[in-house]
Amino acid sequence: MNKQILLAKRPEGLPDPSTWKLVSTGIPEPLEGEFLIQQHYISLDPAMRGWLKDRKSYIEPVGIGAVMRAGTVGEVIKSKNQNFKIGDFVSGWGGVQQYSTSNGENYFKVDPSLAPLPKYIGLMGMPGMTAYFGLLQVGKLKESETVLISGAAGAVGSIVGQIAKIKNCTVIGIAGGKAKCDYLINELNFDGAIDYKTENIYEAISKNCPKGIDVYFDNVGGEILDAALANLAMHARIVICGAISQYNATGKIQGPSNYMSLLVNRATMEGFMIFDYRKQYSEAIKQYTLWLQEGKLKSREDIYEGIENFHNTFLRLFSGEKLGKLILKVIE
Amino acid sequence: MNKQILLAKRPEGLPDPSTWKLVSTGIPEPLEGEFLIQQHYISLDPAMRGWLKDRKSYIEPVGIGAVMRAGTVGEVIKSKNQNFKIGDFVSGWGGVQQYSTSNGENYFKVDPSLAPLPKYIGLMGMPGMTAYFGLLQVGKLKESETVLISGAAGAVGSIVGQIAKIKNCTVIGIAGGKAKCDYLINELNFDGAIDYKTENIYEAISKNCPKGIDVYFDNVGGEILDAALANLAMHARIVICGAISQYNATGKIQGPSNYMSLLVNRATMEGFMIFDYRKQYSEAIKQYTLWLQEGKLKSREDIYEGIENFHNTFLRLFSGEKLGKLILKVIE
Repeated sequence: MNKQILLAKRPEGLPDPSTWKLVSTGIPEPLEGEFLIQQHYISLDPAMRGWLKDRKSYIEPVGIGAVMRAGTVGEVIKSKNQNFKIGDFVSGWGGVQQYSTSNGENYFKVDPSLAPLPKYIGLMGMPGMTAYFGLLQVGKLKESETVLISGAAGAVGSIVGQIAKIKNCTVIGIAGGKAKCDYLINELNFDGAIDYKTENIYEAISKNCPKGIDVYFDNVGGEILDAALANLAMHARIVICGAISQYNATGKIQGPSNYMSLLVNRATMEGFMIFDYRKQYSEAIKQYTLWLQEGKLKSREDIYEGIENFHNTFLRLFSGEKLGKLILKVIE
Repeated sequence: MNKQILLAKRPEGLPDPSTWKLVSTGIPEPLEGEFLIQQHYISLDPAMRGWLKDRKSYIEPVGIGAVMRAGTVGEVIKSKNQNFKIGDFVSGWGGVQQYSTSNGENYFKVDPSLAPLPKYIGLMGMPGMTAYFGLLQVGKLKESETVLISGAAGAVGSIVGQIAKIKNCTVIGIAGGKAKCDYLINELNFDGAIDYKTENIYEAISKNCPKGIDVYFDNVGGEILDAALANLAMHARIVICGAISQYNATGKIQGPSNYMSLLVNRATMEGFMIFDYRKQYSEAIKQYTLWLQEGKLKSREDIYEGIENFHNTFLRLFSGEKLGKLILKVIE
């Protein structure tokens, strides 16, 4: 049987268990030109919260009663498609379920001998691509700049910081709790770490970035974005990657009150969608592979097990109770 | 005697008459290398409100007891400087007073036979330069785009809209009241005008910009910025020029709640300081002179008289009771 997580109803604020419905259906048969994938791992990402809203955004909302959308990595176990053979490992948009079929569109093959499967939905997947193109192309990072990152111990932030270190930048990360801050300093060699749960964020940024922030890579929005705006260097670039502090807000989103700092500092705030860079993904993957081989890059996956645990695992995105890329293993 | 407006105390919220002090002092004598200017006109600009705050920004605050800072245009009536002769007309930072001396730094000569004196603190001065470089260089305007402007009947906004029309764009202006909206449509040939005092700003922008906004030139901030964010086209550019709706706020500035629209639309929000473009001013002045001769550009000055009326005239910046560039004539 194929266990699936369906969207049962649209949540107000933080999703509760009634948001989802676990069902078992028959394993689908691939049609002509299709193949069947047994999914091993499912990617859990903050963006998923946005897909639950009944509002057209960059992508259609997940329909009520539909399988929850998610990135996946798994193995082809049946095929009526010449390009994908039994035994191939593939990554794509399989959704929160154990089996899915595809005609190959938006699927690509991965090689588990080069990197463990979970890395293909982390460093080598959407989070890694987001870090690479967000920092280098949107943020226009230059050597020796000061880079501040929120959500710095997360799937995207931890990669952003390591790329910036490779580019000889001063890197300050913001994260919640001592364990994550220690990880940034001791494991990833960040120059500074700020615990937003215990420190005055304005003072801590000012102290850690005495020359001001050249690039702020924002994953969280809210108060931390305001504090970063208050500490910009001239010609700073703010990369808007996410706003996880606001995703479960039931009222109005907290806008950046200090945005006039953009004017005083001749600074830019820019948003992006990683899909726009898909033609360049191979460049990033090649670079990551090299950096991994050289030992310059570490990526950490926080893997939970069992599709039944989807809801509780999903909540870790917002509670912060995870370290690195959050992944659910769904193969039994 | 030289009548001057001094800053008596820093205002909380909207300045009241006790913010200022009118004094009469002796007319200063130019030292060696200096010249004496009798000021004819004083420029009143929203930015002046920012200079009253006791906080280092892009420029030092005006000191308590100091002459209020302002752009001016006037005539040289005494000179001990070889480059500036009696009878020369000059524009610079003379402050809110009838006479001032200068060594020539940051002063430039103007020609009243080419354009009336008030235009040198309007179209040919800071507001005109702000419109030109803000729209073309920061906003990266392209032919045939949709341009939305707030404060559209003001000194900067009215020029921005006319440049965009010259560039074959669809131009929508937001202003307060029927008279201003009529002016935008009938005098400046804007394609649409929105009266923010009577219309639902979200609906009106959506109706007037069916393809979305490519460039939003923001002079006001607040609710209107949020409504613009909700109506962006892909790859939109928001030029942050000012936030007049927030300058007298005593509490926290209202940040743009809809800023995540930057992400969905791969859009940019950028601030700038016109002084950074000073080496290119002559290019803009040359272009404006040509457009004036061709009848493609109109600029309107709203001129009040008497340095004693400084306070009441200044308040018109925020009440909106003015049309075009606000100027005070101080020569008696």
